[in-house]
Amino acid sequence: MAAPIEFLQFVDDNADAFIQRLSDAVAIPSISGDASHRGDVVKMAEWLNDHLKAVGVETQLVDLGKHVMDGEELNLPPAILGRIGNDPKKKTVLVYGHFDVQPANKSDGWDTDPFTLTIHEDGRLIGRGSSDDKGPVLGWLNILQYHFQSNKELPVNLRCCFEGMEESGSEGLDDLVKKESQPGGWFDGVDCVCISDNYWLNTRTPALTYGLRGLAYFKLTVSGPGRDLHSGVFGRTVHEPMTDLVTLMSKLVDGQGNILVPGIDEMVEPPTESEKAIYERLDYSIADVEQSAGGQIAISSNKVDVLMGRMRYASLSLHGIEGAFSGVGAKTVIPAKVAGKFSIRLVPPQTPELVEPLVKAYLEAEFAKLNSKNKFSIESLHGGKPWLADVNHWNFEAAKAATRAVYHQEPDLTREGGSIPVTLTFAESLGVNVLLLPMGRGDDGAHSTNEKLDRSNFIEGTKLLGTYLYEVAVIQ
Amino acid sequence: MAAPIEFLQFVDDNADAFIQRLSDAVAIPSISGDASHRGDVVKMAEWLNDHLKAVGVETQLVDLGKHVMDGEELNLPPAILGRIGNDPKKKTVLVYGHFDVQPANKSDGWDTDPFTLTIHEDGRLIGRGSSDDKGPVLGWLNILQYHFQSNKELPVNLRCCFEGMEESGSEGLDDLVKKESQPGGWFDGVDCVCISDNYWLNTRTPALTYGLRGLAYFKLTVSGPGRDLHSGVFGRTVHEPMTDLVTLMSKLVDGQGNILVPGIDEMVEPPTESEKAIYERLDYSIADVEQSAGGQIAISSNKVDVLMGRMRYASLSLHGIEGAFSGVGAKTVIPAKVAGKFSIRLVPPQTPELVEPLVKAYLEAEFAKLNSKNKFSIESLHGGKPWLADVNHWNFEAAKAATRAVYHQEPDLTREGGSIPVTLTFAESLGVNVLLLPMGRGDDGAHSTNEKLDRSNFIEGTKLLGTYLYEVAVIQ
Repeated sequence: MAAPIEFLQFVDDNADAFIQRLSDAVAIPSISGDASHRGDVVKMAEWLNDHLKAVGVETQLVDLGKHVMDGEELNLPPAILGRIGNDPKKKTVLVYGHFDVQPANKSDGWDTDPFTLTIHEDGRLIGRGSSDDKGPVLGWLNILQYHFQSNKELPVNLRCCFEGMEESGSEGLDDLVKKESQPGGWFDGVDCVCISDNYWLNTRTPALTYGLRGLAYFKLTVSGPGRDLHSGVFGRTVHEPMTDLVTLMSKLVDGQGNILVPGIDEMVEPPTESEKAIYERLDYSIADVEQSAGGQIAISSNKVDVLMGRMRYASLSLHGIEGAFSGVGAKTVIPAKVAGKFSIRLVPPQTPELVEPLVKAYLEAEFAKLNSKNKFSIESLHGGKPWLADVNHWNFEAAKAATRAVYHQEPDLTREGGSIPVTLTFAESLGVNVLLLPMGRGDDGAHSTNEKLDRSNFIEGTKLLGTYLYEVAVIQ
Repeated sequence: MAAPIEFLQFVDDNADAFIQRLSDAVAIPSISGDASHRGDVVKMAEWLNDHLKAVGVETQLVDLGKHVMDGEELNLPPAILGRIGNDPKKKTVLVYGHFDVQPANKSDGWDTDPFTLTIHEDGRLIGRGSSDDKGPVLGWLNILQYHFQSNKELPVNLRCCFEGMEESGSEGLDDLVKKESQPGGWFDGVDCVCISDNYWLNTRTPALTYGLRGLAYFKLTVSGPGRDLHSGVFGRTVHEPMTDLVTLMSKLVDGQGNILVPGIDEMVEPPTESEKAIYERLDYSIADVEQSAGGQIAISSNKVDVLMGRMRYASLSLHGIEGAFSGVGAKTVIPAKVAGKFSIRLVPPQTPELVEPLVKAYLEAEFAKLNSKNKFSIESLHGGKPWLADVNHWNFEAAKAATRAVYHQEPDLTREGGSIPVTLTFAESLGVNVLLLPMGRGDDGAHSTNEKLDRSNFIEGTKLLGTYLYEVAVIQ
């Protein structure tokens, strides 16, 4: 079922008003990671709650308790649960978004005030949160406004979950999602989930995202001397922790990205021909990767290999060393205790539980080979499972149909190299298909300076999300 | 010729007055590395100059010009040249010392005010500069006072060179030494040099030092991306600079201290049996090394190997990485540009000029093997040649005889793992034998908190330096 023409017309007719509302939302600096802005996050929750109620949504502001940030105990901002429609003949769709934002200061390099939505003549709506994630959240609001004002029922039952701590680890949300997924809970009866909180692969092609990598983050510590030593006095008299650490770190990954820890790359099945074809079709070139990275350093000249490296293979990155000399200039120190930081981005069937023992056993064995008298330890700092959805599920088919209807294009089917942990929580708690349906473009600069959402992405994106609901309603 | 018994008696009789004078010197916080204390370094120069003149030394305060420190142009503190005696039948001895000190604050962990000499009941004279190097400089003054007050000629012609910038790179001194070593210069006719500015190997055995290691310090830079990247988005899509850098750094030295750069360890001749015997005789155990390092991490259980590792072999230490993540916690960054810092302590016949090309060629070849698209560069940050003296020269024989006379012990013959660059300047400019004749013990904590000089080392050390002059006078 195509979305009603009246809906599409309403979106076009109200574009300026929608942008004004986005401007009002951006003006509230709801930075969850800055204790001094906690009141603004709460203000933003109340602003959104009022707007949802005004278009007929039954809402609940949920107190998520307290947490400690930078040594200060703070009230968590409330999550907003929303509900509209309860027709057993309709499918029930849960949509997720967040109304908190990353920090932003003009002095970081913004061309304009980050909390004043600036409309550029090329169509960019520039401001913190425009794309991540206030634009998409307001997309849902735009759709609801149409149905409320024209007195039309939604084609599906809708459930909303909007949170104010996404940029700070989604504290408190997991427990809420698990609780409300129980029988009788707010999310009981949900048939599918749609999350609009990521980006197209490029600036041209709409995308549906069906995978996220997980993470296993390690800290590898080598220590020996009682304090930092002078290399003149102690060089070649003692086992130096840095020598051992660097040797161990060099045995984790090679220059071509292959993970050297036995058993980790081997867990991942080689791609089938049809899967390779997905990557071949993606509208993304080696030049796109290198422009994005700011250097001609793609790991392969084969586009499929590079994209699979990001999306469907694990990766291991060495982040740095704590405790070694890290300043400018020359210092002749033998650091007493050094800790290498590295992490592995995981893909199914890898999990932190499967990978961590392999990493630990391997490094213990490699350290034993060094015949060093230094002390060695390895700990996991944090981890999360990867997520992968069935792209042939009706939830994805509905989104594909909506994309064709609005953009007259086949969407890119993408997997993200990073993580959005709440995705996995929804998938596991509800046991239903989860779709990531991005509104913005790959160059929106979500966590960077001059974050923007293109006007066309906001307006056509609103149509896309609305049309998706109509497609869900009828798809088998 | 033994020192006159009256001299030894004078030193004992005046011990308390000598300690009071050391206390007066310590009270002037002549920190050369702190611009706000530059006036104190000048005050200390004037104090010392007055005391030298008072015991009959002809002196000259030499203006060394200006330099820039922390962005501020400052006058260098003057060097003090001193001269007493010009008898062509006597040998001419040049003594060197410095009157500036390392920084010190009570808050660094000192038990007492660092600039108030505190006399502990166990004999420790605790205060900044007590051992490094005001105690030894005042040792020479004590000797001169005896000869002045008793109206006795010194057994040798004496030349002094005392500087106020040793702790800050001896700026300006090299040029002065070279100039004054010319015919007609202040040091013209010098037969040998004695520097008292290092330490015994342990707390029990006097030492003569005949070698210092040189240094070649390197910065190895790998860069690729235009800015730091997110490991979720770019992991396994680009060549990561940290992976390349850690691989290269792992190829420099092994866990047993062997330098893996071809040609460097090979430059050094294996020790002869008689040389090994020097190390065997040294009054220093593995336990001493490990106590000093604060960990049971000696690179060998063979004492001779450990001591040769410090003194007669080159060593390569990895100091750290600039540009990588070095903080606490977990950050999933792919650093865009990382620079590994490492240095090689050099022994004869190694020099920076010989070693640097080997290191650069080796790393360039190893980088080429990585097939990386990142950029690679290596630069030398600074370097200095090693120094080695003939321990059978009459200058050393005189010091051995003096040690036997004062301490009734054979001195340890040691080489230092670190560098005292002015040693090489004297040796090369004058072309005469240079002796390092330490006054303090291995645990004096020269650059650390609670620096001390033991009373017995100050008093017996004064006798040692004086007796050394008498032995030099007669030795063939």
